[in-house]
Amino acid sequence: MRIGIDAMGGDYAPDEIIAGAIDAAAEIQDDDKLVLFGPREVIESKMPPDIAKMPVRIVDAPDIIAMDESPIDSLRKKRKSSIAVMAKMAAKGEIDGVISAGNTGACVAAFQMRMRNLPGVNRPGIAVVFPTFGGPVTVCDVGANIACKPVNLYQYAAMASTYCSKVIGIDNPTVGLMSIGSEDAKGNEVVKKAQELLKSDPKINFVGNIEGRDIFNGACNVAVCEGFVGNVVLKLTEGLVDGLFKAIKQELMQEQPELAMKFKPVIQRIYSKYDYNEYGGAPLLGVNGLALICHGSSSRLTIRNAIFTVKKFYSENINDKITDYLSETSVRTTDGQES
Amino acid sequence: MRIGIDAMGGDYAPDEIIAGAIDAAAEIQDDDKLVLFGPREVIESKMPPDIAKMPVRIVDAPDIIAMDESPIDSLRKKRKSSIAVMAKMAAKGEIDGVISAGNTGACVAAFQMRMRNLPGVNRPGIAVVFPTFGGPVTVCDVGANIACKPVNLYQYAAMASTYCSKVIGIDNPTVGLMSIGSEDAKGNEVVKKAQELLKSDPKINFVGNIEGRDIFNGACNVAVCEGFVGNVVLKLTEGLVDGLFKAIKQELMQEQPELAMKFKPVIQRIYSKYDYNEYGGAPLLGVNGLALICHGSSSRLTIRNAIFTVKKFYSENINDKITDYLSETSVRTTDGQES
Repeated sequence: MRIGIDAMGGDYAPDEIIAGAIDAAAEIQDDDKLVLFGPREVIESKMPPDIAKMPVRIVDAPDIIAMDESPIDSLRKKRKSSIAVMAKMAAKGEIDGVISAGNTGACVAAFQMRMRNLPGVNRPGIAVVFPTFGGPVTVCDVGANIACKPVNLYQYAAMASTYCSKVIGIDNPTVGLMSIGSEDAKGNEVVKKAQELLKSDPKINFVGNIEGRDIFNGACNVAVCEGFVGNVVLKLTEGLVDGLFKAIKQELMQEQPELAMKFKPVIQRIYSKYDYNEYGGAPLLGVNGLALICHGSSSRLTIRNAIFTVKKFYSENINDKITDYLSETSVRTTDGQES
Repeated sequence: MRIGIDAMGGDYAPDEIIAGAIDAAAEIQDDDKLVLFGPREVIESKMPPDIAKMPVRIVDAPDIIAMDESPIDSLRKKRKSSIAVMAKMAAKGEIDGVISAGNTGACVAAFQMRMRNLPGVNRPGIAVVFPTFGGPVTVCDVGANIACKPVNLYQYAAMASTYCSKVIGIDNPTVGLMSIGSEDAKGNEVVKKAQELLKSDPKINFVGNIEGRDIFNGACNVAVCEGFVGNVVLKLTEGLVDGLFKAIKQELMQEQPELAMKFKPVIQRIYSKYDYNEYGGAPLLGVNGLALICHGSSSRLTIRNAIFTVKKFYSENINDKITDYLSETSVRTTDGQES
């Protein structure tokens, strides 16, 4: 498998990205190749001297898209950015999968535009795996599509269930629909119609509406929601966990500094148990290709894990399974982009 | 002030509700009166023998609406429920404010239907005060209105700013608009249009778009969002905090039980510092009356505090200030319900 990696994307790029790629290069199989995208001289300066012996190639992409740039503007102006060049090569079939921890909006736009959608998919969605106290929960969509229709939510359920079962390893995963109450009558019009679609398909292990709190209590393995809500869920979770651990630390330091020292390894153990880096990025499900979008703060370990997640995505033929699934469903969908 | 209290609403009703009312009764002023709504014999059986000397009255409301009943159906069938009878008396001016920890949907429906909207308000919104590490943050709306228009978000900002400044005591509060990125261009159409309205009013201390994480990092004093998103934010926060503390406890009990015992009071101190019971319920801003909706799990203390919050709401003439504000704004609004 040929895996493209955006060496310039992320808060700790290029160092952590390249380090993660080098780690993975030592472990991957003989027929795998990693392709790093970015300014050639920058990447070369960070590579070890024995690069010629490693399964690593560099593709020069001199333009850099900053994390906070406007996605559409930056893609229009910076045609030689790592994201744009990588997306183009993937669309041509010159690489088999892509990984980026860069500007999420630019990634989604470039990957959708170049790779197009899988047959039967109206809108791709980003699926993030939340490590929770009730096990991993796959939440889709977290921001690829903020004008969500009922059929999109249905397709997120089908795609995220496939991903959850084949990549995360949960057989026949339960699916919850994010709403404002668990009763069927709760929710807005999009949610109510999506609920009907989900109920109509016996292949989806649908458990009904869920509420915000249910993400963390084992109510379901897959949670579907529109991208705006999913994005708020993702960022709120990050902000709250960070804030809460800071509050605990502050409280301990003020009152019992000796207890704070003892508590530190406990926090570290919890962090490592519920570490989202473990899942190495979020797939953009529904594009005709394999795209993994990583967190901006991705470390060397995240990138290393992302490479193995993409390999699993590839070896499990997730996209074929999604296409088969959607071609067999009785839920009406139209090919290609919806208006 | 005559304050109506739904004695039958909440997970711990009627005991905790009545106990909270009795606590407050000992502290309120001479011209205040508490009016308890529910089945007379149930309430009387929970009252102390010296009830005649207390500033407490009972209004018989024999029907009971369960926490998980359909709001509209239950109001239609149970015309003598505590929520329905209380809302009717408030609309007639026979009581000056209402408090309920019961079925939120039924409360919102009954209070809106009976009290009607303040002049200039299109849709009421529920404002919840989150005790955060960066100080209290007032989030509006958390679920009263799930078909939100830009003008509703603008009005939430105006109403919640007034409440935040007069009841929470934060002068000229900063206002953030919940979106999926802090840049102006991020967000759906409703958010983008609301942003224009918020920018056009110099009286609103608007700081721009915020993301989910910003609720907890002091980015703003008031956060406005549509009710679906706000409801997910509220319930997610509750679920995550509970889950995280459980995870810490479990980790400690497994590895260092002696440390767990020492850690318990730390958690308790954090809980009491960030205790939402302190703010005693969430106002339904924009109705022509004073309505406070409390959490289903409200304790005696929550109800006691809610009574003093309603008193402040009343003495600060919040509704007059909101009406004045909206009558002076240049942002176009129409009176009464919008279609």
